[in-house]
Amino acid sequence: AKLWGGRFEDGVTDAVERFTESISYDKQLYKHDIMGSKAHATMLAHQGLMSVSDRDRIIEGLDEIERRIENGKFNWRTDREDVHMNIEAALTDIIGEPAKKLHTARSRNDQVLTDFRLWCRDAIDNMITRIKNLQASLVHLSLKNEGLIVPGYTHLQRAQPVLLQHLLLAYVEELERDAGRLADCRARMNFCPLGACALAGTGLPIDRFMTSDALGFTAPLRNSIDAVSDRDFVLEFLSANAITAVHLSRLGEEWVLWASEEFGFITPSDSVSTGSSIMPQKKNPDPMELVRGKSARVIGDLVTLLTLCKGLPHAYNRDLQEDKEPVFDSVKTILGMLEVSAEFSQNITFNQERLQKALPAGHLDATTLADYLVKKAIPFRTSHDIVGRAVALCVSKKCQLQDLSLDELRSISTAFDEDVYEFLGVENAINKFSSYGSTGSACVASELNYWVTKLEIR
Amino acid sequence: AKLWGGRFEDGVTDAVERFTESISYDKQLYKHDIMGSKAHATMLAHQGLMSVSDRDRIIEGLDEIERRIENGKFNWRTDREDVHMNIEAALTDIIGEPAKKLHTARSRNDQVLTDFRLWCRDAIDNMITRIKNLQASLVHLSLKNEGLIVPGYTHLQRAQPVLLQHLLLAYVEELERDAGRLADCRARMNFCPLGACALAGTGLPIDRFMTSDALGFTAPLRNSIDAVSDRDFVLEFLSANAITAVHLSRLGEEWVLWASEEFGFITPSDSVSTGSSIMPQKKNPDPMELVRGKSARVIGDLVTLLTLCKGLPHAYNRDLQEDKEPVFDSVKTILGMLEVSAEFSQNITFNQERLQKALPAGHLDATTLADYLVKKAIPFRTSHDIVGRAVALCVSKKCQLQDLSLDELRSISTAFDEDVYEFLGVENAINKFSSYGSTGSACVASELNYWVTKLEIR
Amino acid sequence: AKLWGGRFEDGVTDAVERFTESISYDKQLYKHDIMGSKAHATMLAHQGLMSVSDRDRIIEGLDEIERRIENGKFNWRTDREDVHMNIEAALTDIIGEPAKKLHTARSRNDQVLTDFRLWCRDAIDNMITRIKNLQASLVHLSLKNEGLIVPGYTHLQRAQPVLLQHLLLAYVEELERDAGRLADCRARMNFCPLGACALAGTGLPIDRFMTSDALGFTAPLRNSIDAVSDRDFVLEFLSANAITAVHLSRLGEEWVLWASEEFGFITPSDSVSTGSSIMPQKKNPDPMELVRGKSARVIGDLVTLLTLCKGLPHAYNRDLQEDKEPVFDSVKTILGMLEVSAEFSQNITFNQERLQKALPAGHLDATTLADYLVKKAIPFRTSHDIVGRAVALCVSKKCQLQDLSLDELRSISTAFDEDVYEFLGVENAINKFSSYGSTGSACVASELNYWVTKLEIR
Amino acid sequence: AKLWGGRFEDGVTDAVERFTESISYDKQLYKHDIMGSKAHATMLAHQGLMSVSDRDRIIEGLDEIERRIENGKFNWRTDREDVHMNIEAALTDIIGEPAKKLHTARSRNDQVLTDFRLWCRDAIDNMITRIKNLQASLVHLSLKNEGLIVPGYTHLQRAQPVLLQHLLLAYVEELERDAGRLADCRARMNFCPLGACALAGTGLPIDRFMTSDALGFTAPLRNSIDAVSDRDFVLEFLSANAITAVHLSRLGEEWVLWASEEFGFITPSDSVSTGSSIMPQKKNPDPMELVRGKSARVIGDLVTLLTLCKGLPHAYNRDLQEDKEPVFDSVKTILGMLEVSAEFSQNITFNQERLQKALPAGHLDATTLADYLVKKAIPFRTSHDIVGRAVALCVSKKCQLQDLSLDELRSISTAFDEDVYEFLGVENAINKFSSYGSTGSACVASELNYWVTKLEIR
Repeated sequence: AKLWGGRFEDGVTDAVERFTESISYDKQLYKHDIMGSKAHATMLAHQGLMSVSDRDRIIEGLDEIERRIENGKFNWRTDREDVHMNIEAALTDIIGEPAKKLHTARSRNDQVLTDFRLWCRDAIDNMITRIKNLQASLVHLSLKNEGLIVPGYTHLQRAQPVLLQHLLLAYVEELERDAGRLADCRARMNFCPLGACALAGTGLPIDRFMTSDALGFTAPLRNSIDAVSDRDFVLEFLSANAITAVHLSRLGEEWVLWASEEFGFITPSDSVSTGSSIMPQKKNPDPMELVRGKSARVIGDLVTLLTLCKGLPHAYNRDLQEDKEPVFDSVKTILGMLEVSAEFSQNITFNQERLQKALPAGHLDATTLADYLVKKAIPFRTSHDIVGRAVALCVSKKCQLQDLSLDELRSISTAFDEDVYEFLGVENAINKFSSYGSTGSACVASELNYWVTKLEIR
Repeated sequence: AKLWGGRFEDGVTDAVERFTESISYDKQLYKHDIMGSKAHATMLAHQGLMSVSDRDRIIEGLDEIERRIENGKFNWRTDREDVHMNIEAALTDIIGEPAKKLHTARSRNDQVLTDFRLWCRDAIDNMITRIKNLQASLVHLSLKNEGLIVPGYTHLQRAQPVLLQHLLLAYVEELERDAGRLADCRARMNFCPLGACALAGTGLPIDRFMTSDALGFTAPLRNSIDAVSDRDFVLEFLSANAITAVHLSRLGEEWVLWASEEFGFITPSDSVSTGSSIMPQKKNPDPMELVRGKSARVIGDLVTLLTLCKGLPHAYNRDLQEDKEPVFDSVKTILGMLEVSAEFSQNITFNQERLQKALPAGHLDATTLADYLVKKAIPFRTSHDIVGRAVALCVSKKCQLQDLSLDELRSISTAFDEDVYEFLGVENAINKFSSYGSTGSACVASELNYWVTKLEIR
Repeated sequence: AKLWGGRFEDGVTDAVERFTESISYDKQLYKHDIMGSKAHATMLAHQGLMSVSDRDRIIEGLDEIERRIENGKFNWRTDREDVHMNIEAALTDIIGEPAKKLHTARSRNDQVLTDFRLWCRDAIDNMITRIKNLQASLVHLSLKNEGLIVPGYTHLQRAQPVLLQHLLLAYVEELERDAGRLADCRARMNFCPLGACALAGTGLPIDRFMTSDALGFTAPLRNSIDAVSDRDFVLEFLSANAITAVHLSRLGEEWVLWASEEFGFITPSDSVSTGSSIMPQKKNPDPMELVRGKSARVIGDLVTLLTLCKGLPHAYNRDLQEDKEPVFDSVKTILGMLEVSAEFSQNITFNQERLQKALPAGHLDATTLADYLVKKAIPFRTSHDIVGRAVALCVSKKCQLQDLSLDELRSISTAFDEDVYEFLGVENAINKFSSYGSTGSACVASELNYWVTKLEIR
Repeated sequence: AKLWGGRFEDGVTDAVERFTESISYDKQLYKHDIMGSKAHATMLAHQGLMSVSDRDRIIEGLDEIERRIENGKFNWRTDREDVHMNIEAALTDIIGEPAKKLHTARSRNDQVLTDFRLWCRDAIDNMITRIKNLQASLVHLSLKNEGLIVPGYTHLQRAQPVLLQHLLLAYVEELERDAGRLADCRARMNFCPLGACALAGTGLPIDRFMTSDALGFTAPLRNSIDAVSDRDFVLEFLSANAITAVHLSRLGEEWVLWASEEFGFITPSDSVSTGSSIMPQKKNPDPMELVRGKSARVIGDLVTLLTLCKGLPHAYNRDLQEDKEPVFDSVKTILGMLEVSAEFSQNITFNQERLQKALPAGHLDATTLADYLVKKAIPFRTSHDIVGRAVALCVSKKCQLQDLSLDELRSISTAFDEDVYEFLGVENAINKFSSYGSTGSACVASELNYWVTKLEIR
């Protein structure tokens, strides 16, 4: 019989039991459920709502249950619905009568949210560690490839030359904001619902500050209805995950492109590649394709949760049981994405020779040339037009800007002078960049140093 | 070593193996994978690409594997990546050399899509059966509650009286379109990719029409690149599911409202209700709350798949491995929603007395009264205005329209006559409806009869 | 004063008026609203609910309003809320008293859905025309590029050679299913809600079949509550659009890749390219980037509508007013995407020389070589392994398979013979394909012929 | 001719121009575009890249343009693509040559993001103001309804009695976190991209700190590629909006329920209600229905933006032009939702009498009774069971708990004593609550005081 069965005559049908159970996934909360119950029992005893010996038996019983679960010897029962009821019922099986006092001044409504907030708090900590690890991997990759120039793209068309290090540090910047978002989310989430009970609080003399402290929360939530109704803490968490996933999907896309025959920038090692069941020559950058693809489910999980919560009245509705699986899936997925991205970045080699050979194409120095004219006091719009015509000449001649003779250049504008050739060619172009945050060598070296220090590398 | 390992020196890292495996979920395709392999082997033998004895040993081996799987004695191995490789490798373990011929003129790209289309086809058939079952349950509920009048709502404000049967049949109509959408999807999906191989077809003399026929497909897909690249068949399937889920979420919302103390229309039996761990008096309509809530994940699954496919180049990309879990989840969820909705509808009682008592409130007959005036040749806009003023009088007098005296009515408009009272009151109002598709008793009886026949009830 | 103002003393606040108005966008329905009103008036007169002369004055008045709207001389007023009230009020201004009879046996609930279904029906017809046009453009592009071989990709890694025509026809296949989906949606949508009134039908002697016929619907909807409550017809429509959008996003991605310096397959003409405000050399394939990007909003529109409808009770709720903007946006966006994709395909040139030069890389003939071994009676798995080792040899020697000497090949497997060279090289590989739906020249020619006939090209 | 037209021979087609333009919506950025250009020109002059007189003419010209725009006298041209080109070209028309120097060391890539971040910063400030306003309205509503008890619900079933004030303050708590999320987003967003140019920075001697300061940014962004590539600042903004929208949708649902005949808690004034075109008696809470409904588009806008950014390589891609409309729509929608929710809350009256009459139903005091038994040293699980049986007795007797005689109670458990009646009935139950954050009168008064002070009310 269900623990709530007092007023019920019949049990639920099999289909309803299967449909409404949550034990198949919420058992993941067991550690935090036990942690919460211990803090709760300790507080109840401190407040005189339970004897010290009952408290001790409860804590011993919970320890025994935790051991059984971790040894795979705990019998999770679907007819006991969820993790809370499974543990409480097992506790009753083990220690008997005192177990019946544990649920004093507590409802599953506040209990599950205590568990869930604790679980999410740990998940955020894990995620931030993985983010730092990926950042460090990217910084290492930068350190290994000093001075390597790659084409910078806009519209996937070659735009201007950039240092590979500069591009890799762009990802490090993105990830830093991702970590910041999670830290903000953690701070806002870290309040304790325990003691809100069903929705209205209780008349029993509990001490919510005591349990909140014991569980490492900042403070108890101030309003019991808010405490059991809202799910904004997971909505914010999944939003942060979705944004991180989008960042990683862009890394995935870029590295898949780079590993293609056509781009040919990188060669992944065998340890991060897979083959084909039919085409013997294939060596595919699957992990980064999956990083790109799995971003979709992190987005889908967020949509599920937003749609779930939309239009629900206060306080708890059973719909909200569906809040857990999207979170578990989102966290598991993104932890994997972060881990594999770090591994991939540790297992690629840049094809320096091929990159260098490919660089001249695409007129990457055209903007540098326009800046040259600006320095000669030509208004930028006019410079842009002049260089546009020089490029058109190159296209018709199938050559690069540095291949044009001074006469050819001067036939377009007399502002061109002998010193123009110091501005042409990819290496020259790179050397000219000097603005803060630019791809100029000195700027990039300084940034790299910043990150080495910040991430405590070396 | 992986089956595709010829050109590889090293295996993948543990993290990559964990991240890229699909066996944890695609093993669900085992039955259809085996079915496809048998058809393929039979065709290869028929075309002289394999001996008859090899074919027979392959088929026997596959039968043995199917038995082991169904008896829980098959050892699924993550290092063998997916269901295809697990089965092929096990086949090699069992029958040796001939197994190596099975993957002739086939790639995992076309193989998995063959499996997946077969799986989805079965899933659609199951869903249509469940839809019919829910329709039948709603028709039964109608038959049990003949003549029961309930308030019809717009804006959740009482609007006009309707027969409960009429409202229940609205759901039956919705579900009929849901089934139609699935049937269309099935017809468009039922084409065979097998033989498209990696993406380009093959030079070996296979017969794609033979395998297509053997597997019950309409015909082979006409273009090998299309065959392995597109996922529109699952996008369409999940779209259809999402629409059905939205329908069911509305049923869920409505029945949760009806089960509330405030509406009090229905009493669910204990067998479809659950209680509270803290509040002893609670009896909650959880299954319908979860029906409402789970619609969110069916929507989320669709978003995952749309986002996944967006912007991928042809042909196969590893991202597409992620196409399966959303489909499995969507199908499982919606099958449960349909089943539980049917069970719930079989386990509720309408509180006829309470309903009848509540009906007079809300001026449900106001529109009937306006129609009365139209019949007296008052333009509708003027009628609407007159009745509006009559309602205002009722509000100030805290009474219903039928409580107004003829004098009071005539003080608003002289068009009112003694016969007006035949149009007032909820029963009178219901009896006046006569248009096709309306809630008039005769119309509804005819519709109910239509569905009883169509669904072969009784 | 509002037309529904009878029982109201005060008007709404400015903020509420601004927030609840729909005239800023639903005026797009004017043509279908007028069409519906004419059919309705004609029916009312036929049924004796209105005089013939009133009917004629109403129709003349509506014609006058339509002229004013199309000449930009109609004064849309926010205080008249929506397109229906604006037109009805203007009709009253123009023809006086008879206008007040138009809304007999009609509610805005059924009226707006009649308009909206008519609008969507037209939109679907436009979309199908645009789809056919894009298909025809792709077939034309195929005809212009007979015999051109391009690398076929999986995982964006070179896989096997394919005819460009074969790849283009894959898109034609996808689009054909897109059109089929729309046609199914149109058929399921084409039922008439008019006469369902607020939600319950009416007691006035209307003829719903007459209006349904006049407006080209298949039949009236059978259930008045269903008629005004459900939005599945637009959910299905937006789902179909989302799937088409995903298809086009893949085309967009592919063509953006092809236009890159690195792939270099195509050169778009100036007429479909744009430049940069800073980099004078840039020529970007913006239209196809936007085709890819705009797919996101078509997906977003679907999500909006699904989320909107989730969990709403029957019948009409004001939330449903929000059903129109996502549909208008989705249709406008996708019509543009189809149009621009067709224009782009008409304005690109394939760089045949460069393509040919790039083809040897990537071991595109490896699978053909494995099939060669299968024909020599080597089991496929063994063949795959042998060729894998041959590729590994090529990688270490930095050469292609056809560059290996027979001795080198035979050092890997003695099954190789002199005739192996007939299977190596990209042209040889293409010529070997023969299966139905493959990229073999004869197969592709036959398919191209099929589409030329079906689309009535030339 | 386009400003970037140097290397182009032909203009784009009409369809491409229509499809790629952004001026129809990005003109909303004009004020921030002009602000940015002034800061940029000032910096250029300070750095010697422009004369002081050119700077002054540019600033005067920009002022003139701003005036024209605000007076509706500016001619926005689609052939000039976007807000930046329209303003720059107009500037050239007005002041001639000096205008050509404005785009020095700037690209549209960094320019638009500067504009957009400034726009979003203002939008966040507006949103926070509206949130505070809604919070204040809810606190005012609390102050007006001191002591009013309403049923608290879980599963939409009556659970425990709560003070209306307590429930209203739950919304205030939610909104406080919403504001906090926006503040965090603002802080993370407030960095300046200007000077990142196309993607690589520049070699011209600009001072990015000067423009950053002038525009009120915290600092320039540290990496030029990151600066022009990422859109996480709007993803975070739209996520925050979506969460707020979900909160408001729940308020909408709740108040729609409360305004129903069945709940009957509130009567909205005419100024926030609307009527029906057919049913004269209707008075609908449309604004709150639309608040609920419009949450869907705020969610849809987020999905659009997430899907848009997914899988894009660095740096700028034209897809990203599509980032603006979802943001504009999301902000406009949510500002309206906040405003109307505040107005609605200012225009409702609670039906105290009716509420009081309805309270006895639902056994709202059952949990208080269980706590009573706990105080008598009965373990909670046992208490829960005892009270469950007492409720079952009430159900069979169709009475409330307080109607049971002591004998009846003691027949279930001898722990019941005369003092039990101090715990029964709704008022008694409310008075018993005492835990921090509970609905006890003293707790709620203290919280209300907290918010009155914090929001500076009275």
